[in-house]
Amino acid sequence: MDTQEGACLPKLSRVAVCGGTHGNELSGVYLIKELMKRRREADDEEQPILVLSNPRAAQQCLRYIEVDLNRCFSHDALNAPLSDSAPYEVIRSREINAVLGPKGSADSVDFICDLHNTTANMGLCFISCSDSDWISFRKSRNTGCPLKSVLCHIGPTFLSFSASVSVFRFARWCFVTFPRCVFTAMEVGPQPHGVVRSNVYTTMKTALELVLHWIRLFNCGTVFEGGPVDVFTLVKHVDYPRDCSTHDIVAAIHPLLQDKDFCLLNPGDPVFQTFSGETITYNGSESLYPFFINECAYYEKGIAFSLSRKSRVNVPSLRANRDQSR
Amino acid sequence: MDTQEGACLPKLSRVAVCGGTHGNELSGVYLIKELMKRRREADDEEQPILVLSNPRAAQQCLRYIEVDLNRCFSHDALNAPLSDSAPYEVIRSREINAVLGPKGSADSVDFICDLHNTTANMGLCFISCSDSDWISFRKSRNTGCPLKSVLCHIGPTFLSFSASVSVFRFARWCFVTFPRCVFTAMEVGPQPHGVVRSNVYTTMKTALELVLHWIRLFNCGTVFEGGPVDVFTLVKHVDYPRDCSTHDIVAAIHPLLQDKDFCLLNPGDPVFQTFSGETITYNGSESLYPFFINECAYYEKGIAFSLSRKSRVNVPSLRANRDQSR
Repeated sequence: MDTQEGACLPKLSRVAVCGGTHGNELSGVYLIKELMKRRREADDEEQPILVLSNPRAAQQCLRYIEVDLNRCFSHDALNAPLSDSAPYEVIRSREINAVLGPKGSADSVDFICDLHNTTANMGLCFISCSDSDWISFRKSRNTGCPLKSVLCHIGPTFLSFSASVSVFRFARWCFVTFPRCVFTAMEVGPQPHGVVRSNVYTTMKTALELVLHWIRLFNCGTVFEGGPVDVFTLVKHVDYPRDCSTHDIVAAIHPLLQDKDFCLLNPGDPVFQTFSGETITYNGSESLYPFFINECAYYEKGIAFSLSRKSRVNVPSLRANRDQSR
Repeated sequence: MDTQEGACLPKLSRVAVCGGTHGNELSGVYLIKELMKRRREADDEEQPILVLSNPRAAQQCLRYIEVDLNRCFSHDALNAPLSDSAPYEVIRSREINAVLGPKGSADSVDFICDLHNTTANMGLCFISCSDSDWISFRKSRNTGCPLKSVLCHIGPTFLSFSASVSVFRFARWCFVTFPRCVFTAMEVGPQPHGVVRSNVYTTMKTALELVLHWIRLFNCGTVFEGGPVDVFTLVKHVDYPRDCSTHDIVAAIHPLLQDKDFCLLNPGDPVFQTFSGETITYNGSESLYPFFINECAYYEKGIAFSLSRKSRVNVPSLRANRDQSR
């Protein structure tokens, strides 16, 4: 129920945290294992639900064993007949859907935080995913939402007080925008895949604690004041220059663009440097904000970086509905 | 023939450059491909010999397909009977040995530069390898060499004039120390595996050009003056703290050690931070220099970082023997 003054939304009764959806993104893998260990030792409460999403890939330190698990959660994929030769991740997606879903049903969890790492210098980000993303349980209820894929950059300074406010405000924005599908992919970088860096691990751990704290406050009836949130909306992807016959890349991200995620890219700015040393410039007509610059896993997807538009969204004040959980 | 004043050594007639020995170390992969492309286009001279060492692993962007190619070049491995089920890399090592060797024979090449990347913040390094390393063609002639494994750190400033002198001086030291086995593994980082970063690629390209230039000058009779070289000699490896039952790591490199390769580590300094937040300090009794800190590929080898002693070696002046090529 929305009002002029703010939004009144259902409580988040069932919350899940997933790590290791990509088995070589190690901050998420080790954080979920640490949380599981703590729960075993402390005989802790049962919330949030903890899921090591792709244990086989984590064991082998691979993104995935056969197919990308993070592309296995469409309704079609989840409901297709299961053959004997189904890839491991297709089987695993059904198992996860049985625990956290079924997707689109009233029994699914209210909130999922999925932990990811990137080789890009993106700091701490929360990503609201496209229709095809797996954790959009209940997406069928999201009609009318004008945002197909949105990304909010919190930045490396989030650990300061003002930035922890940003985390809260973003969670609020996310909740208001997707009132029946509160999900966030938490993306933290830069960290090489197959490596865990203490600073990145600690950023992820602290941000997750903030999100879970926010949910507890919300469920207890705290009223959150409204305010602005900067949002980056995906416009398009840009591939590497490639050799026509071999499809090999023939250039790397230009040194002046490398690590400049969320810094404005203007027409004519350098974007690539070929392996023979020439500079290739951005030939778009609009200044945009690049992100996922030089993400390791996107070479195979044909993405050198993505471009976004920045906008400022005013989030209304928010409190939980006292009468119902959903 | 060595003299009081300096060393007079055989010319380096046959030189090889190898990239992609580890298929996900992309600066080396793309540099060797670029050199091969240039040669095709320019109908260039036949030296140096160019080898894409592990093309299948490079194609799949993996360190290796079945076994680490860089551990397949011992005399035993090269000479054992070849079964039908031999791993791809074992077969590939024989092919490379046929082109650049046979290892230990008079027909082998005089100099090999093998291009590598690391996720560690090691800048540009040249590594003289242990007996087990594959590019020690002619190692049987290296009796009497007191150094089993040696590493020389050139540092990130090598592109300045003084640092290019360092490259030259190190090549000279390497040549004097191993007169019949001139080999270097060029290690450049930090770069995530599966990613190419322009600055790392350019460092590798420029360093390789300097090494090849040095060889041309040496072969033409240039006399190189002697001088000091800082050398880091491996003392030991240090593994991550691990869970006794699962063997999982339970800590990451401490933020105060991360990226501090070749900076002195003193007893009591922080080295790890556990996933629950505790600090673990260095309990050795001797101050040593860490390197390969948080190298991705060494998690499976049980190495969190390696420790070395630093020494200053005086390299004698050097010139090529005018009468023979070897």
